[in-house]
Amino acid sequence: MTEPADYGRLIVQGADRPGIVATVSGALTEHGANIVALDQSSSDPSGGRFFQRTVFHLPGLSEKLDALHGALDAKLGDELGLDFRLVEARRRKRVAIFVSKMDHCLLDLLWRQRRGEIPMTVPMVVSNHPDLGDDVRQFGIPFFHVPVERGKKAVAEKEQLNLLKGNVDLLVLARYMQILSGEFLDELGVPVINIHHSFLPAFMGAGPYQRAKERGVKLVGATAHYVTEDLDEGPIIEQDVIRVSHHESVRDLQRKGADVERLVLSRAVGWHCEDRVLRDGNSTVVF
Amino acid sequence: MTEPADYGRLIVQGADRPGIVATVSGALTEHGANIVALDQSSSDPSGGRFFQRTVFHLPGLSEKLDALHGALDAKLGDELGLDFRLVEARRRKRVAIFVSKMDHCLLDLLWRQRRGEIPMTVPMVVSNHPDLGDDVRQFGIPFFHVPVERGKKAVAEKEQLNLLKGNVDLLVLARYMQILSGEFLDELGVPVINIHHSFLPAFMGAGPYQRAKERGVKLVGATAHYVTEDLDEGPIIEQDVIRVSHHESVRDLQRKGADVERLVLSRAVGWHCEDRVLRDGNSTVVF
Amino acid sequence: MTEPADYGRLIVQGADRPGIVATVSGALTEHGANIVALDQSSSDPSGGRFFQRTVFHLPGLSEKLDALHGALDAKLGDELGLDFRLVEARRRKRVAIFVSKMDHCLLDLLWRQRRGEIPMTVPMVVSNHPDLGDDVRQFGIPFFHVPVERGKKAVAEKEQLNLLKGNVDLLVLARYMQILSGEFLDELGVPVINIHHSFLPAFMGAGPYQRAKERGVKLVGATAHYVTEDLDEGPIIEQDVIRVSHHESVRDLQRKGADVERLVLSRAVGWHCEDRVLRDGNSTVVF
Amino acid sequence: MTEPADYGRLIVQGADRPGIVATVSGALTEHGANIVALDQSSSDPSGGRFFQRTVFHLPGLSEKLDALHGALDAKLGDELGLDFRLVEARRRKRVAIFVSKMDHCLLDLLWRQRRGEIPMTVPMVVSNHPDLGDDVRQFGIPFFHVPVERGKKAVAEKEQLNLLKGNVDLLVLARYMQILSGEFLDELGVPVINIHHSFLPAFMGAGPYQRAKERGVKLVGATAHYVTEDLDEGPIIEQDVIRVSHHESVRDLQRKGADVERLVLSRAVGWHCEDRVLRDGNSTVVF
Repeated sequence: MTEPADYGRLIVQGADRPGIVATVSGALTEHGANIVALDQSSSDPSGGRFFQRTVFHLPGLSEKLDALHGALDAKLGDELGLDFRLVEARRRKRVAIFVSKMDHCLLDLLWRQRRGEIPMTVPMVVSNHPDLGDDVRQFGIPFFHVPVERGKKAVAEKEQLNLLKGNVDLLVLARYMQILSGEFLDELGVPVINIHHSFLPAFMGAGPYQRAKERGVKLVGATAHYVTEDLDEGPIIEQDVIRVSHHESVRDLQRKGADVERLVLSRAVGWHCEDRVLRDGNSTVVF
Repeated sequence: MTEPADYGRLIVQGADRPGIVATVSGALTEHGANIVALDQSSSDPSGGRFFQRTVFHLPGLSEKLDALHGALDAKLGDELGLDFRLVEARRRKRVAIFVSKMDHCLLDLLWRQRRGEIPMTVPMVVSNHPDLGDDVRQFGIPFFHVPVERGKKAVAEKEQLNLLKGNVDLLVLARYMQILSGEFLDELGVPVINIHHSFLPAFMGAGPYQRAKERGVKLVGATAHYVTEDLDEGPIIEQDVIRVSHHESVRDLQRKGADVERLVLSRAVGWHCEDRVLRDGNSTVVF
Repeated sequence: MTEPADYGRLIVQGADRPGIVATVSGALTEHGANIVALDQSSSDPSGGRFFQRTVFHLPGLSEKLDALHGALDAKLGDELGLDFRLVEARRRKRVAIFVSKMDHCLLDLLWRQRRGEIPMTVPMVVSNHPDLGDDVRQFGIPFFHVPVERGKKAVAEKEQLNLLKGNVDLLVLARYMQILSGEFLDELGVPVINIHHSFLPAFMGAGPYQRAKERGVKLVGATAHYVTEDLDEGPIIEQDVIRVSHHESVRDLQRKGADVERLVLSRAVGWHCEDRVLRDGNSTVVF
Repeated sequence: MTEPADYGRLIVQGADRPGIVATVSGALTEHGANIVALDQSSSDPSGGRFFQRTVFHLPGLSEKLDALHGALDAKLGDELGLDFRLVEARRRKRVAIFVSKMDHCLLDLLWRQRRGEIPMTVPMVVSNHPDLGDDVRQFGIPFFHVPVERGKKAVAEKEQLNLLKGNVDLLVLARYMQILSGEFLDELGVPVINIHHSFLPAFMGAGPYQRAKERGVKLVGATAHYVTEDLDEGPIIEQDVIRVSHHESVRDLQRKGADVERLVLSRAVGWHCEDRVLRDGNSTVVF
């Protein structure tokens, strides 16, 4: 997590073909970069999709970034038809957090940010309720209250977009109890991560702990996923579970589940901020 | 798991009301029984359902069983309107196993039975395929091949019932790839435990590992449950999961899942054989 | 965790003998109490030690407490030679927290207290460093800075005792980096819970994460235990672990371990505050 | 786990320096190999130790193996001073198993071998007791009984070496209750994997479950490690744990632990047979 100025990340993905690893590592080495860590995966030995995350060290990275990008564009883009992203590790992602009234996921993220566990900045927290303003501002972070009135979601989303546009690289829904419209997601143009309080695809939709109790499951879980227009259907980043027993009430399940929710969401956001999560259709590759 | 002749189990359940624990323990003590272990649970502090499992030691239990049963019937049944079961620990449950071609759950149960880990006898294994006959017979256990021809399930079920009726206290479906009819379940008249190869209610029905891969989940699991007419809907006894990652194929998921399946099924069967599982509507209380 | 005024807990332990459960439950029922939950355990079927925790509902408990205590004393103490504690659930334990510079265990406890997850009050936090004062006071809790100068621990302990004596029912060491003297523990006279940052008895003493890395273990853990004069040797209340891999540094282990530490400590403190932890020599029974 | 004839594995390790990944992948690509999977790790960004495992596809691998080996020797060995191993995936490791009387680890390994889960052959099982001969031979595997008489271990080890030398690539101690001498290990000349029935370094030496019960731990575990002359001190390959509670006896711990032992040992042996385990001093890198 130490990110001196000279570290970079190269994310490559596309149709698999022989020689990609050699080409990528060769291109980096030619430009004087030393590969510090490399993860690679293919969905299938032949004809599959290819994924690679490379961390490299290159003295004077900032000045050389444009030249390196150009060279990679020629080699990886034009010749091999691959998508790639070139990222300076020192540029922390700007992460906005949407929240309603529950504080556990929010506080866990803010506390990890303060400890330096997640390489992100948090330019703002936005809520449809005023309750968590004090907690947020104690971390030195702006808190904006944007009420969502019944039947006037479009108004609220417009106000939210005004706050977010151009200011953030990621939006995190930390138990935000409103559904975002497809227009909002399109307009926003950056990834959105949500935490769902069940082990998806079990208990999609509302009231998962209540339904878990009714079904008598022996484990409850949580799922962090990218948000798409299809509610609770987006690519899963991380999941985990905790054991529960017959003597526990719905409220007990909520409490135990809250511990899983905050861990799962924090892991997912941390991995995203380190460019470890690559989308593969409706799945993810997590390096 | 040591079950000398003088240990008994008393399972009580019914509508909760004040004083049940005192009444039950008083009745046992009056008859000279010493309570060795007691588990008790109420679904709700007031007006809920009551569950209790008591293990006791009573010298000469076999001869005193009828008298004790009569006394309990008066106190618990007539006075309090509770259901109860009185069981001698030395009487091991007779368990038949249905299997198709996959051996992992079957062999795990037979190994544990041989090692004395599960207090059961296995009078027979029945399969719709002949493949596992040799493996079963090496344990000294009869193996019966009852083919299930397309459109003739009723014929097969009749033959299965002829084998089972009166001979077994529990039927275990150890990855048996046929659905049992409601008539079969009614006619059989003993509990049936199935292992489903997913974390229910996720991925009910066929092909759960394939669907887990497609959905991109980060954990796969297994569920042992009592069989009811509603497929994959019966009361859950035990569940567990194992972590999987993007680089694992459907076949890898099947292999990892097989380890979870056999552990989960063996635990569920063991608990049932020790009278630890009490049904509560479509849930279970596991003591 | 709802603790209306009329709920009580009765904790009984001592040499096992026939009839204890019946006697205890009979005594409660006689006084009009309804047993809501009962956990019971014996270290050995014959000649072992007996443990029981009973939660009961008794309208007007506060006024009847003395009479009930007297009756139990006669029945359980005089006749059966058992130790017992009778507790009103509405009386929350007063918990002081000692801390040094690390905030993760402290904040987790304070968050849970604020959310009502742990039935305790926190009358004070004491630290040998001033760093965490602001964080603590934001929760409305007094923070006292008691420096521990080299060679002058006795002075500091005297000051700490002046703060604590008579004001607390439990002391929690939330990564407090000082060893408490035997005299302090004797003088204090209430239980002390510590969190050790390893899976005890592995890596007792200092620097467990460093040593875990050197030994190449594949899991790191944490242990909450009652403090005795023998460092890291007291009765264990709770333990848990998390998987680590070769690519993780000592600092990564510390971060992952911190998540385990706070969960393990919070569970242990919560169970203690609900009178779920009974000491059995150098072990614990956790109901 | 499908290993057609044309798949190979290249394991590289040594002092880290810039450009190794590019050199290795370049060398493979030059020879017509397509990299299917690549794992790489450095113990430290600068001046550390370097580890890489590459799986590649090369039509006609068997005939080209010598030429490829020569080329790699020049590039990796002579130029960069790295150690490397070049392995044909189709050549399964020959694994001998030593066992005493307990069958759970042995049977799990043999059963997984039969299912094709571990890419190994088992040319022999050797035991100091005759008890498990029938079980082994039912798998079609030779069983040799080599008694170890008190004070005559050297005689037994000589007989064991006669059986093993030249015939095996790995020796697995599947709860073999004898300590092997340093001379035996030297003479044998292939890796030896042991399963220890505790979470090392906790409870090294004899009787770990008994001592776990006495210490009152809340989890028991197992550790698979390479055997060195220092008992229970060799490099750890894999560990796992399972939760236990106060009401469980030493025998219960042994039973629960047995499930962990067999899983941990099978994973470790499987990973070794797929060349996923690289030694790093007294630790391991597991890809």
